[in-house]
Amino acid sequence: MNRHFTLKPALYVVGLLIVVLGLSMLIPGFVDMAAGDTDWRGFFIAGAGTVTVGLLFIFTNREERITLSRRQAFVLTVLSWLAMATFSAVPFFFSRLNISYTDAFFEAISGLTTTGSTVLTGLDTAPPGILLWRSLLQWLGGVGIVMMAIALLPFLRVGGMQLFRMESSDTQEKVVARVNQLGLGVVGVYTGLTVLCAIAYIVGGMTVFEAVNHAMTTLSTGGYSTSDGSMGHFDNRFILWASSVFMAAGSMPFTLYIHMVRGNWLAMWKNNQVRSFLAFLAIVSLVLTYWLWLVSDFSLFDALTHVTFSVISVVSTTGYASVDYSLWGPLAVASFFALTFVGGCTGSTAGGIKIFRFQIAWRLYRSHIHRLISPNAVEVKRYGERKLDDDVVAAVLLFFFVFIGTVGTITLFLATLGLDWVTAVSGAATAVANVGPGLGDIIGPSGNFKTLPDAAKWALAFGMLLGRLEFFTVLVLVMPRFWRD
Amino acid sequence: MNRHFTLKPALYVVGLLIVVLGLSMLIPGFVDMAAGDTDWRGFFIAGAGTVTVGLLFIFTNREERITLSRRQAFVLTVLSWLAMATFSAVPFFFSRLNISYTDAFFEAISGLTTTGSTVLTGLDTAPPGILLWRSLLQWLGGVGIVMMAIALLPFLRVGGMQLFRMESSDTQEKVVARVNQLGLGVVGVYTGLTVLCAIAYIVGGMTVFEAVNHAMTTLSTGGYSTSDGSMGHFDNRFILWASSVFMAAGSMPFTLYIHMVRGNWLAMWKNNQVRSFLAFLAIVSLVLTYWLWLVSDFSLFDALTHVTFSVISVVSTTGYASVDYSLWGPLAVASFFALTFVGGCTGSTAGGIKIFRFQIAWRLYRSHIHRLISPNAVEVKRYGERKLDDDVVAAVLLFFFVFIGTVGTITLFLATLGLDWVTAVSGAATAVANVGPGLGDIIGPSGNFKTLPDAAKWALAFGMLLGRLEFFTVLVLVMPRFWRD
Repeated sequence: MNRHFTLKPALYVVGLLIVVLGLSMLIPGFVDMAAGDTDWRGFFIAGAGTVTVGLLFIFTNREERITLSRRQAFVLTVLSWLAMATFSAVPFFFSRLNISYTDAFFEAISGLTTTGSTVLTGLDTAPPGILLWRSLLQWLGGVGIVMMAIALLPFLRVGGMQLFRMESSDTQEKVVARVNQLGLGVVGVYTGLTVLCAIAYIVGGMTVFEAVNHAMTTLSTGGYSTSDGSMGHFDNRFILWASSVFMAAGSMPFTLYIHMVRGNWLAMWKNNQVRSFLAFLAIVSLVLTYWLWLVSDFSLFDALTHVTFSVISVVSTTGYASVDYSLWGPLAVASFFALTFVGGCTGSTAGGIKIFRFQIAWRLYRSHIHRLISPNAVEVKRYGERKLDDDVVAAVLLFFFVFIGTVGTITLFLATLGLDWVTAVSGAATAVANVGPGLGDIIGPSGNFKTLPDAAKWALAFGMLLGRLEFFTVLVLVMPRFWRD
Repeated sequence: MNRHFTLKPALYVVGLLIVVLGLSMLIPGFVDMAAGDTDWRGFFIAGAGTVTVGLLFIFTNREERITLSRRQAFVLTVLSWLAMATFSAVPFFFSRLNISYTDAFFEAISGLTTTGSTVLTGLDTAPPGILLWRSLLQWLGGVGIVMMAIALLPFLRVGGMQLFRMESSDTQEKVVARVNQLGLGVVGVYTGLTVLCAIAYIVGGMTVFEAVNHAMTTLSTGGYSTSDGSMGHFDNRFILWASSVFMAAGSMPFTLYIHMVRGNWLAMWKNNQVRSFLAFLAIVSLVLTYWLWLVSDFSLFDALTHVTFSVISVVSTTGYASVDYSLWGPLAVASFFALTFVGGCTGSTAGGIKIFRFQIAWRLYRSHIHRLISPNAVEVKRYGERKLDDDVVAAVLLFFFVFIGTVGTITLFLATLGLDWVTAVSGAATAVANVGPGLGDIIGPSGNFKTLPDAAKWALAFGMLLGRLEFFTVLVLVMPRFWRD
């Protein structure tokens, strides 16, 4: 850490990312053009501007060889997500939707973080380019978070992710090697699953355009839809089940898919975290199905379909809605609020606290109770084959603390703006967990974030970023020591 | 731990406690008799029965010399609180209030745990014996929890309380010595403060009976009142300020009062936890006062009075109400819900998570962030003069986890019974934190727990006990390993 601290390498990489983002704006541009929608101009102007800025970043910050210190890696991560959100908002701002930049930024960061809270209404009649841009942002954000979780966060030791390091040492060279080695595989698997999902949706009766959009927002566990009615718009059981399967698929560790492709077919099934995740989904879905079947007019199969879909939608942090589950009564409201926090597996596109942290907390709890009973007993705490050292223990337990603290702080801020308590607390939770819908009349499953005050939108956007980057990545930057040489 | 496990010593001590409880039932009995209220018979019958059962416990479990293993100490703690609640409910059940045993038990455990949630209405015209019994239960529960926090929990290493051990080794002999040495001092200070508080209330205009009752429920941070209107009934600023001072006094470590009495006048002021507690109260009160003054018709001084009183009432986990703060708008609702979790200092009568755990969590957070920035830096984590070893770290961080988990579980159970989400989540939180009032129309500051279903009352009672015994004391008992020889 005795190198002089410079932002140059970070800005260079951000430049590269922005150029890619700018180029990808052309895709919805062409789609609008093909559909004869005038909105294509916005995409081309935004794309040209974004590429230009990206090139400027690249040329002003070029260096012989890019090396990143830990501190520069933190700055790079936060800067690149902020830059991506800032620029990807431009096409929304330029479109004929006529929304403020605040709304455009909210929609963009909600997309990139695969949260899926929206400020847009009238999606069913919106320009196809805008719909595709929303889906594309979630899809890109999804692959971005998977790469980050596989390569960067274990190296940075954020939130206990060092447990998922492949090598015991974590030099920068190894990180780069790992990205090179796994990057193509991850993109391949992610694309393959998206194509399979799109085919399933087409079989279920969606148009190709709808299927492609929803497949992108399903695998990325994002939850943007081409209809105000979300998945409920299609009123089709086959689509709901297909969606359930692929949302769950998006919440599983992508490195394990690569193991499967390489011939280790049982890699996914043998994984401890995946098993707990699936068992949790199964148990919660069955219990709530039985309860819904008792208290409602749903047939058993319909109850099973809607409950399983809604549970997977919230736990995978996708946020699609098939029906407004908040109308099912108090138990549904309380359950879905609690499920908001759970999240999927690490190394996936899902947000939330994530299964492995609950597993570790449970192990620590059990071992702590054992020590209360027999204080002199020595017990080695393990997760899989890894030993749980003090750093991991503190990182995982503090993660819960920071998660709750962030939700609490944002809740208080939203309440200061005059939002009622249910909207404030569920809005904060759904943003930080990257889920999408909240509770209550305003931002519930059939609601919309449009009417919130601007300050609330910025606070929620910040919450989404904090949650997506697993808090510590952002929080190190506000510690004065970080900037001291 | 290779002694044969027997409940005898625990049952013997429980017997002693029950006898004391039974004898103390005579006090409200005599008061009713003096007031000419027929309810005195209930107290005498209940007292006689309780003393008899206690004597039976004593004589059937007498041993030459009482020695308690760790496991027996856990059993003793839980058993004695359960036994106290079971028997102290009897006078309520026998009174002319005509309530079910469920309601009587709820009222008793809410009293003993100094929670202060009530199922009774018409307090203003209730028999004086019953009012005094409620206050007495809180007062006894308060001194019980202080003794437990000073002597027993540090020995049992529950929730990180080993930080407050006086000696480095914790043999049973030292625990007994400590109880003998501090016990009388604690009772003396507690009684002295209660008398001072009663005098202040009399000066403020209460009758002697009202003053004695409220003084007992103030110092114990319990919150039972002799009026349905709680402290708001007296509509008196002096009383509210006196109450604020003594509620805060009840939330401070009682060992430090003893240091003060022994001549170390600055012991309280120099204590790190106490300073943070007072600073927190001051900052939150001032911010909310300013906000209330802006949005309401209150004069600045009235706003300061009601806000300070309400903040101290909730943070000290007393739960008195002067006005219905939930009518002050969304920020008040969100703030008071958040404040429900905070709690006072350890070694006091206050419940909640408690200040020292927040201080330790903050220290761990900062040290964790420092290690993220410079992974090779070695930092010794301290709280005061004590090193924070792994056991304390895990105990403190798991405490948050278990606290939230318990609130979540009880919330889901209450929702299953059909209670709306706000009632369920605030009811669970207020019970587990031993505060008293929740949010919403039913159990809000001007509401009552009477109309809840019986199952909800039992669940909340269990939550109060869990919170009061700092969770782990109860949770060790449900671990199969505990009962293995």
